[in-house]
Amino acid sequence: MEFLVHIEIEWPPGNDPKLKDEIFAAELLQGQKLAREGKLKRLWRIPGRWANWTLYEVADATELHACLTSLPLYPWMNIQVHALAEHPNDPRSLGL
Amino acid sequence: MEFLVHIEIEWPPGNDPKLKDEIFAAELLQGQKLAREGKLKRLWRIPGRWANWTLYEVADATELHACLTSLPLYPWMNIQVHALAEHPNDPRSLGL
Amino acid sequence: MEFLVHIEIEWPPGNDPKLKDEIFAAELLQGQKLAREGKLKRLWRIPGRWANWTLYEVADATELHACLTSLPLYPWMNIQVHALAEHPNDPRSLGL
Amino acid sequence: MEFLVHIEIEWPPGNDPKLKDEIFAAELLQGQKLAREGKLKRLWRIPGRWANWTLYEVADATELHACLTSLPLYPWMNIQVHALAEHPNDPRSLGL
Amino acid sequence: MEFLVHIEIEWPPGNDPKLKDEIFAAELLQGQKLAREGKLKRLWRIPGRWANWTLYEVADATELHACLTSLPLYPWMNIQVHALAEHPNDPRSLGL
Amino acid sequence: MEFLVHIEIEWPPGNDPKLKDEIFAAELLQGQKLAREGKLKRLWRIPGRWANWTLYEVADATELHACLTSLPLYPWMNIQVHALAEHPNDPRSLGL
Amino acid sequence: MEFLVHIEIEWPPGNDPKLKDEIFAAELLQGQKLAREGKLKRLWRIPGRWANWTLYEVADATELHACLTSLPLYPWMNIQVHALAEHPNDPRSLGL
Amino acid sequence: MEFLVHIEIEWPPGNDPKLKDEIFAAELLQGQKLAREGKLKRLWRIPGRWANWTLYEVADATELHACLTSLPLYPWMNIQVHALAEHPNDPRSLGL
Amino acid sequence: MEFLVHIEIEWPPGNDPKLKDEIFAAELLQGQKLAREGKLKRLWRIPGRWANWTLYEVADATELHACLTSLPLYPWMNIQVHALAEHPNDPRSLGL
Amino acid sequence: MEFLVHIEIEWPPGNDPKLKDEIFAAELLQGQKLAREGKLKRLWRIPGRWANWTLYEVADATELHACLTSLPLYPWMNIQVHALAEHPNDPRSLGL
Repeated sequence: MEFLVHIEIEWPPGNDPKLKDEIFAAELLQGQKLAREGKLKRLWRIPGRWANWTLYEVADATELHACLTSLPLYPWMNIQVHALAEHPNDPRSLGL
Repeated sequence: MEFLVHIEIEWPPGNDPKLKDEIFAAELLQGQKLAREGKLKRLWRIPGRWANWTLYEVADATELHACLTSLPLYPWMNIQVHALAEHPNDPRSLGL
Repeated sequence: MEFLVHIEIEWPPGNDPKLKDEIFAAELLQGQKLAREGKLKRLWRIPGRWANWTLYEVADATELHACLTSLPLYPWMNIQVHALAEHPNDPRSLGL
Repeated sequence: MEFLVHIEIEWPPGNDPKLKDEIFAAELLQGQKLAREGKLKRLWRIPGRWANWTLYEVADATELHACLTSLPLYPWMNIQVHALAEHPNDPRSLGL
Repeated sequence: MEFLVHIEIEWPPGNDPKLKDEIFAAELLQGQKLAREGKLKRLWRIPGRWANWTLYEVADATELHACLTSLPLYPWMNIQVHALAEHPNDPRSLGL
Repeated sequence: MEFLVHIEIEWPPGNDPKLKDEIFAAELLQGQKLAREGKLKRLWRIPGRWANWTLYEVADATELHACLTSLPLYPWMNIQVHALAEHPNDPRSLGL
Repeated sequence: MEFLVHIEIEWPPGNDPKLKDEIFAAELLQGQKLAREGKLKRLWRIPGRWANWTLYEVADATELHACLTSLPLYPWMNIQVHALAEHPNDPRSLGL
Repeated sequence: MEFLVHIEIEWPPGNDPKLKDEIFAAELLQGQKLAREGKLKRLWRIPGRWANWTLYEVADATELHACLTSLPLYPWMNIQVHALAEHPNDPRSLGL
Repeated sequence: MEFLVHIEIEWPPGNDPKLKDEIFAAELLQGQKLAREGKLKRLWRIPGRWANWTLYEVADATELHACLTSLPLYPWMNIQVHALAEHPNDPRSLGL
Repeated sequence: MEFLVHIEIEWPPGNDPKLKDEIFAAELLQGQKLAREGKLKRLWRIPGRWANWTLYEVADATELHACLTSLPLYPWMNIQVHALAEHPNDPRSLGL
């Protein structure tokens, strides 16, 4: 099942820059791990914000929650999940 | 450039069912045409609504507007467009 | 997977009362059919509104969409779906 | 009377991890106590958030308030309560 | 249990004035009946709107729903219900 | 003139518990004083929140503001005021 | 007591132009009557909308409601009332 | 003084297509007239909507209102006006 | 040109009381200065909030911004500006 | 492609004034650099707020994001981006 996930990162400007560098590096690695496992399919930046849209493909909402809480930046994330149903005209299912 | 597009279809319950069938059939064909042209990349239903999320890849907002207004259901659509920026960790750009 | 579903029914006061009776009767039957199939688990009225909260247990959002669009009142419904993840302290999973 | 309760936990990322462990453990115990008393009926996680939906069955809003304020995490909770009315087609009342 | 009820009446300006007179008269009578039964306790107009705040005292949300749907104007009402819990400092409980 | 007042108390979880006890005690006393003066008529808790609905009867908005700012918790309150007009069908004016 | 009143006029584009002319003329007269009575103090257009801000000075919300419902356009108005309290630094009270 | 103006056109799908053609043609002409008078400076489409952002430069809000109500589509427009103040770093004032 | 200005003051309860006294005193003086200059015309308190509605009459939005940023409390203010157009039925322009 | 960008600056009143002066000076310089490169076209203040509307002309959302994150105040900015499509009646494209 696919989910469209909207993530806003709420990082106080005065936070320790070293902590930011460490967490940011760990975040990139964990994102790539989820991508290699075929769970995180696409990732886009929202222009002008420390925020993104992500497309996940997982078994259900419980596995999605496990993926999202595995992200090092999770404590600073404000996340909205949109459950997706298959559309008969989706180019992927049409083989287009 | 990619755009995430949220479409709600506002179709009055009392509308002519024959009109609905005709427009719906034409809508499917036009969606497939945009998919074959490589502009409409993915299409999902929003569960419980006559609504969808669509992923477009086009030159800019002007071409996107031309795609969306080419849809036969356009006069009954309430559309919100989200411009997307590339993310360095996007599985597609990483080749994952 | 469970979903919490919020349904508002938008029925114009001037609609044909006979149509309302017919659709309402069919709605009750279809709701009971979904309940007997183990998909619709609980159903509550929202006081003061022609609206309800429903708890569904289905395979995924695609099956949920099929359930909801099978309801005779679907064309007059404004539906918001909330995907649910399992909680380790849920009385059901604890056997309480 | 049943209530559907939406709880968001607002826990600052910089809070003492030991305090978090202690409160979290106490929270689990108090939730199980309310479940054993037949007041807390179901509990779901909202995917991607430190948040949940809970179904309570209590005498009235005053008893519900007592349940909710008994939770150790209450000072960090943002709670919205939805009063529920019985629906004649609820699978529980139909014995389905 | 007490409930604070916010009611907006959505009456199209072009509706039949005679229908309005009939329904309005029946509405006043039904409101007085609920007041005499001790269920509808207070009623205020919201200035500048065809809307009101009402204070109900009933057994639970199910009885409240029965009261509200007994109102002749119910099909034209947009109603929001606020469940109330007792406050230890309420002048009524203090005998003030 | 009556006013319906919605009060949310925004008290940081980490505040000094002793300060909380002192202010809370003073708050109860001031509320009872306003009740004895016939200005604060009813007071309800909003279940699940440190919040309440209050019914005031005062000369005008200026006197209401004086009442509200006299509350010891005022600096931590987020207050929304709803002006009320008399309704000819109010049980109080009908003597019901 | 003064009130700041926000009025949106919701007039369907297809309504009878003659009705519009008649009601509009009556509206202007009634507005001037309220102004001469010292109740309607100021009136501004909201640019780009068939809407206005109005400043009323009346005894209370009940009289304000009577003023507003006396307007011929009232059935087509969506009105929000803001109760005002006196400010010690108001130029009018300072005689500036 | 400059104003940023957000315009949504609310045109029912079932309206007479001939009326639409006539009004649309008149709208284009009136827009060009305002542009030639130096009042309408820039005009953009909002992708996916029958809506636009417009930049006006006029004496004040009263003249802006006169410009906007001169548009043939005005009765079908939902308009939000944003007043703009000069910024010392504006490329136009810097001659960039 | 007139502007209706909505100001919320966001002053943390724990701030230094001496700073509050100093800034508050300076705020009153600057408000009176703007009033004497004929720019600040009316000032009302919003009951129950540290907030106000203000009526300004200035050349344009640039001068309004200069007035507002001259207020000592400006760094703690959340301000929304409403541009006003003249109304032909305004009592002031009618000499009423 | 053009973008309309809405920027709110969220600067705590208690921040170090020297830091503010340094960042503000750097912000002005970077804004002028973007203007000279032809990317930042117009810049307006929102009256009463530390906020602005900016008009950008860049290749796409990815370049826009690079421009915005190059601003020294970026960590304190809350930014909303509006993608713009060309309008055939835009005075610029008409050569007006």
